[in-house]
Amino acid sequence: MGNGTRPITGANLIAGSESAQGPASFQAHHPATGENGTVAFSDATGEEIAAAVESATTAFQEYRSWSSARVAELLRAAADEVEALGDQLYEVADAETGLGRPRLETERARTCGQLRAFAAHVESGSHVEAIIDHADPDATPPRPDLRRMRVALGPVAVFGASNFPLAFGVPGGDTCSALAAGCPVVIKAHPSHPGTSELCARALISAAERVGAPAGIVSMVHGRGPDVGRALVLAEGIRAVGFTGSFQAGRALYDLAAGRPHPIPVFAEMGSVNPLFVTQRALRSRGAQIAQGFAASMTMGTGQFCTKPGLAFVPTGDDAEAFVGAVADALRDVGAGVMLNAGIRDALVERLAHTRAITGVQDVLTPANSDGDGVRCAPSLLAVEWDTFVANPELGEEHFGPVAIVVRYHQGQLPDALAGVDGTLSISVHGEDADLDDLLAVRDRMVERAGRVVWNGFPTGVAVAAAQHHGGPYPATTDPRHTSVGITAIDRFLRPVAFQDAPDALLPSALREDNPLGIRRLVDGAWR
Amino acid sequence: MGNGTRPITGANLIAGSESAQGPASFQAHHPATGENGTVAFSDATGEEIAAAVESATTAFQEYRSWSSARVAELLRAAADEVEALGDQLYEVADAETGLGRPRLETERARTCGQLRAFAAHVESGSHVEAIIDHADPDATPPRPDLRRMRVALGPVAVFGASNFPLAFGVPGGDTCSALAAGCPVVIKAHPSHPGTSELCARALISAAERVGAPAGIVSMVHGRGPDVGRALVLAEGIRAVGFTGSFQAGRALYDLAAGRPHPIPVFAEMGSVNPLFVTQRALRSRGAQIAQGFAASMTMGTGQFCTKPGLAFVPTGDDAEAFVGAVADALRDVGAGVMLNAGIRDALVERLAHTRAITGVQDVLTPANSDGDGVRCAPSLLAVEWDTFVANPELGEEHFGPVAIVVRYHQGQLPDALAGVDGTLSISVHGEDADLDDLLAVRDRMVERAGRVVWNGFPTGVAVAAAQHHGGPYPATTDPRHTSVGITAIDRFLRPVAFQDAPDALLPSALREDNPLGIRRLVDGAWR
Repeated sequence: MGNGTRPITGANLIAGSESAQGPASFQAHHPATGENGTVAFSDATGEEIAAAVESATTAFQEYRSWSSARVAELLRAAADEVEALGDQLYEVADAETGLGRPRLETERARTCGQLRAFAAHVESGSHVEAIIDHADPDATPPRPDLRRMRVALGPVAVFGASNFPLAFGVPGGDTCSALAAGCPVVIKAHPSHPGTSELCARALISAAERVGAPAGIVSMVHGRGPDVGRALVLAEGIRAVGFTGSFQAGRALYDLAAGRPHPIPVFAEMGSVNPLFVTQRALRSRGAQIAQGFAASMTMGTGQFCTKPGLAFVPTGDDAEAFVGAVADALRDVGAGVMLNAGIRDALVERLAHTRAITGVQDVLTPANSDGDGVRCAPSLLAVEWDTFVANPELGEEHFGPVAIVVRYHQGQLPDALAGVDGTLSISVHGEDADLDDLLAVRDRMVERAGRVVWNGFPTGVAVAAAQHHGGPYPATTDPRHTSVGITAIDRFLRPVAFQDAPDALLPSALREDNPLGIRRLVDGAWR
Repeated sequence: MGNGTRPITGANLIAGSESAQGPASFQAHHPATGENGTVAFSDATGEEIAAAVESATTAFQEYRSWSSARVAELLRAAADEVEALGDQLYEVADAETGLGRPRLETERARTCGQLRAFAAHVESGSHVEAIIDHADPDATPPRPDLRRMRVALGPVAVFGASNFPLAFGVPGGDTCSALAAGCPVVIKAHPSHPGTSELCARALISAAERVGAPAGIVSMVHGRGPDVGRALVLAEGIRAVGFTGSFQAGRALYDLAAGRPHPIPVFAEMGSVNPLFVTQRALRSRGAQIAQGFAASMTMGTGQFCTKPGLAFVPTGDDAEAFVGAVADALRDVGAGVMLNAGIRDALVERLAHTRAITGVQDVLTPANSDGDGVRCAPSLLAVEWDTFVANPELGEEHFGPVAIVVRYHQGQLPDALAGVDGTLSISVHGEDADLDDLLAVRDRMVERAGRVVWNGFPTGVAVAAAQHHGGPYPATTDPRHTSVGITAIDRFLRPVAFQDAPDALLPSALREDNPLGIRRLVDGAWR
């Protein structure tokens, strides 16, 4: 296991080896200080990308037949190795992201917990969904013996997100669930935190070496612009894509993948507005408390969470004005935070200016010049009347950063408000028990729009649990049938196969008659 | 329930009403006699397609919240109503398809059995995959109460196949699994059997009326050319597409759906070559028997099954020549069969001429002029040496109809042969116990290429069973992660949603604390 400081070379890591063949390189930017790092990170060339995919394809021939026990060993070794990066990981990640050590500690714990949770999940064997129907010669027509299980899809391209350098980065949920499924990964490191990515990739490579995995099981490539990602998605050997990031980038990759001669699925988790609805009763009884929670949730990570609540629907009246004032007060206390990079900050500033120019948009709180050192942004709060919201659909689109809009509405407009909301990761409702009958009447409309419905809470903080669903209708994701958080994320990278009348000797262990793995199986209609 | 003869009007059936607004119409062709039917089937207009989708969208608002018991009642009523079509269904379907009454009786039994199997499946509640993780306030960070289930995706467009007018037609697997999932359907009838489609749609509509379903739950539109299908896939309210048919049409619909502003999944089951591999030992010990089975399988339904074995790899030598002769003899006994329509026959004739012109392709059996009455085709058998197969990748593509190619190979070339095979619904292997070690070494390569691996059998005949998988890697399908046969076909039309800290009163029954439906759920990591 690694111990002490690892080198950060700026090379692509292909099948365990450093490679920096290309002419182009870039440096990390440190958003809290405005300085640049000293390492030159090498943009991967077409040949390097092809080599990474080829090595993943070769590795797949071996890795897909690994036992669940060995896969679990790899995942646990990966968690150990990420932990073994120790303070170096926090220092590099904090410099590159400005997220601060407490948050990075939490995120590392989540990331390693996730790797270990998937290890336990694959050990249980339930992810293969083994189903056995014994032959029925008396059926019309006679039915053969059929045995079905799920197998790995093949090499997966993973695109690390900017906003969670660990949990949705190189060692994050997509990598973890792909490896758990039996799929090698080729990871496109996010250029906002290339050093963090290299450290984590080295940890994964060390884990692979420790457990004797084929070298091509994990590769990582750098690329500042979109070309490296495009080439990766178009590489013939890639069988699926996991992505977390912007709508524009996610859709572009989706379109590329769909246009391939052999199309492949893209699981892109993209932008989301995460509306919050407050009932009159809840506003009356605890408006100030909801305002506090809302302000905290919308500024978490300087508003750069995919689950940031960007819209609050509040019943019009004096209580609404008190709510708006309370949110503004809380936001003033939060003050400016570090943004992940200048590109995100600039896009937000431009978007905010556009939004503020819409007739009827009221500036409740707009940022003072908050650009001291580095890339910073103070929170903004806007407010609109219902009619303005309805007349301007772009008010329902995401502002990625610490910006939110309060919409004054009448509670009876809730169905219309839901109809005006695009597909989103979450919808939150603050209500009282006496509201439940009214809310029940619109529950299925909430479900139609969102991947998660939160009651009397806030959407930031996505627990890693079997019952989690972090996804939602387009444009929140490109595939509402899948989650990127929680153990069911593994479903994305598996496909079923059936064996007909096959002798035990030809069957994978999961389907053999005597169930040597001792896994849960559906046999002749009954779970055993 | 219907009884006696139903009208066949040629109208589109939109939300239970006849509609024939457009100027264009077409007649059914009767392939066994060469005659045309007398009914004018009305090509749906853009307005009619939009009305069908709008009514489906409206129906969805109610239907998605139906209890599983009511959904099951609908599916059983549909089976009853299809059966109540009685002899009229057989007469119309036989005239339009030439499949013959025995086959149509089997297919009706399969179709109704399928509807009833899905009824039982939704009653079990296991399709919603309910998962509950109770709150854990002591976790770091504290974990909220999370409850996840799967809900219906929304209105589904179904494209009936030409070759199974019932089991993959209007009342077939796609319609059945979409309705079971809680999704209304808009069905594009196949123009080869429009009267059969209208009868079946009327049966579904009667079933919907009997159980009080909203009128828009089932609509059916006609269209001879591709325009109607295109408009349906592009209709904003459609949330998924089920398709069985040709590669060209399936890929075209996939591309359209992926290019929508709001992309939707297309589950297209397309062409497939279904190769069969024979070992030296099996050839020696029972070559004649395998030849008989192969000839029967490749001519079933005049070779127009998606699982028709189109390639047989046979170890070169005297036994191979005996095998080729035995297949040819058996095919002569089968003789000419009725093709589904002239378009399919013409495409096959053209394709076959192209294949026969390839240098090294040996004509073992080519059809005499088999065009007496109607649209008929006699079986063809071609043979090639391994080198010819390798040099001409198009020999690995499907001939849709009673045409097969024997490839003479050496058993040691099995891995290379597999590498040369495109994604396919099935791979069949005929071998002896002594071959198992060799075959085990290439099992995962078979799995990589196929959705189903058949041992000492033939791929035609796809049992409806939980352990079935009728799918496979592209180009066999556009999504290898799903099946179009068997109860897991319902997975295509469901998406998960999570509830966080929601009170019981706001939860769907499947997730309430006391499990009022009594369904199987994963609660805090344990199945209950």
